[in-house]
Parts: sequence; structure tokens; C-alpha cells
Amino acid sequence: MMGLTHLTSSDRMHPLDQAIALRATSRHEFTGATHPAYANMVGPFGGTTAAQLLQAALVHPERLGEPVALTVNFAAPVADGEIRLVSRPVRTNRSTQHWIIEAHQAEGVVATATAVFALRRETWSNVEAVMPTNVPSPDGVPRMSLKGTPAWPQRYDMRFVEGAFPAAFDEQEQAHSRSTLWVRDEPARVLDFAALAALSDSFFPRIYIRRRRRSMVGTVSLTTYFHADSALLVQVGTRHVLGVAKALNYRHGYFDQTGELWSPEGQLLVSTHQLVYFKD
Amino acid sequence: MMGLTHLTSSDRMHPLDQAIALRATSRHEFTGATHPAYANMVGPFGGTTAAQLLQAALVHPERLGEPVALTVNFAAPVADGEIRLVSRPVRTNRSTQHWIIEAHQAEGVVATATAVFALRRETWSNVEAVMPTNVPSPDGVPRMSLKGTPAWPQRYDMRFVEGAFPAAFDEQEQAHSRSTLWVRDEPARVLDFAALAALSDSFFPRIYIRRRRRSMVGTVSLTTYFHADSALLVQVGTRHVLGVAKALNYRHGYFDQTGELWSPEGQLLVSTHQLVYFKD
Repeated sequence: MMGLTHLTSSDRMHPLDQAIALRATSRHEFTGATHPAYANMVGPFGGTTAAQLLQAALVHPERLGEPVALTVNFAAPVADGEIRLVSRPVRTNRSTQHWIIEAHQAEGVVATATAVFALRRETWSNVEAVMPTNVPSPDGVPRMSLKGTPAWPQRYDMRFVEGAFPAAFDEQEQAHSRSTLWVRDEPARVLDFAALAALSDSFFPRIYIRRRRRSMVGTVSLTTYFHADSALLVQVGTRHVLGVAKALNYRHGYFDQTGELWSPEGQLLVSTHQLVYFKD
Repeated sequence: MMGLTHLTSSDRMHPLDQAIALRATSRHEFTGATHPAYANMVGPFGGTTAAQLLQAALVHPERLGEPVALTVNFAAPVADGEIRLVSRPVRTNRSTQHWIIEAHQAEGVVATATAVFALRRETWSNVEAVMPTNVPSPDGVPRMSLKGTPAWPQRYDMRFVEGAFPAAFDEQEQAHSRSTLWVRDEPARVLDFAALAALSDSFFPRIYIRRRRRSMVGTVSLTTYFHADSALLVQVGTRHVLGVAKALNYRHGYFDQTGELWSPEGQLLVSTHQLVYFKD
């Protein structure tokens, strides 16, 4: 009991909230930092960087509405340490707002983003994408082994139904790179836009699933469309969402992959696409 | 014969080349203009605007390599007339370069873009996306009727195998919004990156195919991944490419659609995604 009263606010915060915490330094500038809980092999997990860039618009006092589209370009390796975010609403209309966001470190721009925010209205709604069927519930699927992983996959509870990260790089090329998994933040956390932005980058690079071969990879551009609004995200709460991902094309050093995140009730929360550099 | 010698260079230029022509005004600034040949119902076709933004990086003297990713956000209606483009390489690495590009008109920012350029190398290549099979050759499919269309669809030779623009808004809702078509510039023009950027926005808004109902729509964000390099584009030349498009999800005023452009030989030239505002 005594122990708890000694905890600082930051100790009680979810690691994602710690990782995306920003301090305003001027009208359009914020300071954040990489967080060891989301470390990758080298530098931070790109999903957390994407969430930080989005957060620099979400917490901006001039923000209008909620995000509907986010594109993050990863311009250079992010070094562990402080990140300066410059976040500018370049156009504000009646129901939409357009952002340009830059992430700077000592040696220059490390990432850029554009985002579209909007005030939504109820309209005719429909889903044409197809959620996988006959998927066992999260309780019926074992959690991915975390043996030997960097920090960031430990911040997710991933339960692969299909297309898990290979247990060994045995170079047995697979027919496709499709994955289906239940995933949520670990520890559990109510879903919000920052969490969705990070989750959108949590699909492992498809080339590993496809080729089961060690290779150097790095996302260069990540686009996420948010179909969910905050009311729907609160309904999903802390539960797992169903992720699906697949590659489209690999050619001359770059491949693209596309992913979806579905609510347990079958609502498409986001569709997300990325272009990835690879070296074979 | 005499007549020809009187033609100015601009008369002999393909309308797309006229539409994307830029004049450098300072290190990072260019001036272009909307072109009547690519007019939409109101203002210009968004694909031409996307091509102009990309062109502002393509013609920049500091450009490195060829485009691999482009995201254009349409921030406000583009007015007919002059457009001022500000195009900055914000990060140049050994083999990649990151751009932020803005389009301005009198009343402010009308579009923004980010682009990734790269020097490519030969690597293992593979396609997982599936090109439609049993598609008749372009000669075996009639060209889309241009009756009543604005100018821009007349600048394309579109031959729909499936999912044509509805002949009437009869409000007969369809089961899906999938389209398959052969498409090329009209008049024919050797494919290049600017043409691909424009073509990526030439898929009609899926909600028209799906609902066959009049509604106000506007692309808010368009992302294109270029799998083709310039050598492959020259191979395709002036021939038709096969386009496929489908919607994923419609909800609360926004839907997304995804498209592919395939070479006649079955190479994926681009994958492209967009988020579209709609009002029903």
C-alpha cells in the first residue's frame, strides 16, 4: 500500500502512454523521446514513432475532429533519445483539417507525416472487405513466444491463427505471406487512435513470413485509414482485435504490404498499407 | 504541311505534358496551372494535381533516383488557374530521398504531398497480388462512352471488362464495387511516373459503382506505391495497362478504395489506395 503512494504518475502510466508523452515547447513544437519498452533491434519500433507523430496533432490545441488518414515516411534511423516534433495544421476547413508533421533529431529530419482529421457524420455504411471466418477466439490461440524478441513485440499480445513469425530462418520459401492474428496492447489498454497507429505497424515484414530468410528491412512509408471513430474504439475497449496482413509485390529492393484491423464484432477499424525496403 | 510549322511546341505536346509543365521560380518553387483538357465537373481532375505535385520533385535539380511512394492529400478545392508548388527534399540519404511538397493558390494550401525517391537495385522479386485472368485483350472490349463526361475521362481510353461507371443512377445497389478495365492515356503516350500518378486517381469513386446513386464525393488522401522503374515503364510504352479497383469500407462519411495497375505481361506497376469523403 505504501509502495503505491510512492509511484510517480509516469510509473502508473501504460508504457504506450509513456512512449507517446509530449511536452509542448512552442505553438507548433513538442518534445518526446524514444522509450526502452518499445525498443527494436536498433532504435525504436516504427509504430511508436508513427504514434508520436500522430500524437503531435492529437494534442495540438488547434486540432479539429479525429484522424481519418495518416501517412508516415521514415526518413532515417531514429536514434534512442529525444525527438523534436513540429506539427502544423496547414489547412483547416469546416469539417476537415490537414497536417504536416516532422520529427527531428540532432542530425536532421528522421520522419515526416501528413494527416487528415475530420468531423464525421452518420451516413450509409457498409464493408466490402471480408473478415476471416472460422477464426478461433483469442482464448483458443496461444500467445506468440517472446523468446529472443526485442522489447516491442513484448508490448503486444499476439496470437497467430496463420502466418506466424518463423521459428527459424530455414529458407523454406512459402507460397504466400498472409497472416491472421489476434492482437492487443500488453498490458491491456483501451484502444485509441495512437494505439491504432502503432498497431498498424505491428504486422511483421511480410518478406520474413514469405522467405523465412534473414534480410535487412525497413518501412519507408506507412499509410493508415481510420474507419473507426473514438466511440467505436471505446466499444472495442481492451479486447483483442483481429489483424490480417499480406504482401502485394516485391521488386528491386522494395515490397508493399497491406493490413486490416477488425473489431471482434466485424467492424473494420483501420486499413493500412506500407512500402518496405529490403536487401536480400 | 505549312500548318504544322506554325504549331508552337506546346501545341505539339501531349495534353498531360502541357498539364504538368512547371516553371521554376526559385530553388524550391515552381509555377504550374490547371489545364482545360483535364477539367472535372468543378476544378481539375485530382490525378493531374497529383501528377503536378510529383512533377515538382521529378524536375527538381536536387532529385535522387525515382519515386517509390507518393501520398497526396487534397486539402481544398483547386481553382482553375495558377498553382504555386513548393517542393523540398527534407532528407537525402545514400539511396533514398524524402520530399514534402505543397500546392498553394491565392487563398492558401490546396494540396500537400510527401514522396520517397530511391535508387533501386536488382533483388529477388515476386508478386503475391493476383492479376485477373481470362480478360479479353483491349481490342476485344469497347471503349467507355464519353457522352456527358467532363473533359478528364476523355483523356483516357478506358475499356471496362467489369464494373463500368453506371449508365444511369438507378439506385440499384450492387453487391460489390469491383472494376476491371484496360486503360491508357488518350492520345496514347509512353508511360512515365507522372502518368502513373494520374492514372492512380482515374478509378472512379467506388460508391458510384456500388450504389448507382448520385452523391457528393472527393478524394482526401491518395497513396501510390511505384513498383515499376523507368525501364519497365518504357517496355509498357503506349499500350493499355490493366486496372483493378475495389472498395474496402464505407463509414460515417468516408470510404477507402484500393487499386492496381498491371502491365500486359503481368507485372504490377503500382498499387494505390485512397480515402474518399462522401455525402449521401
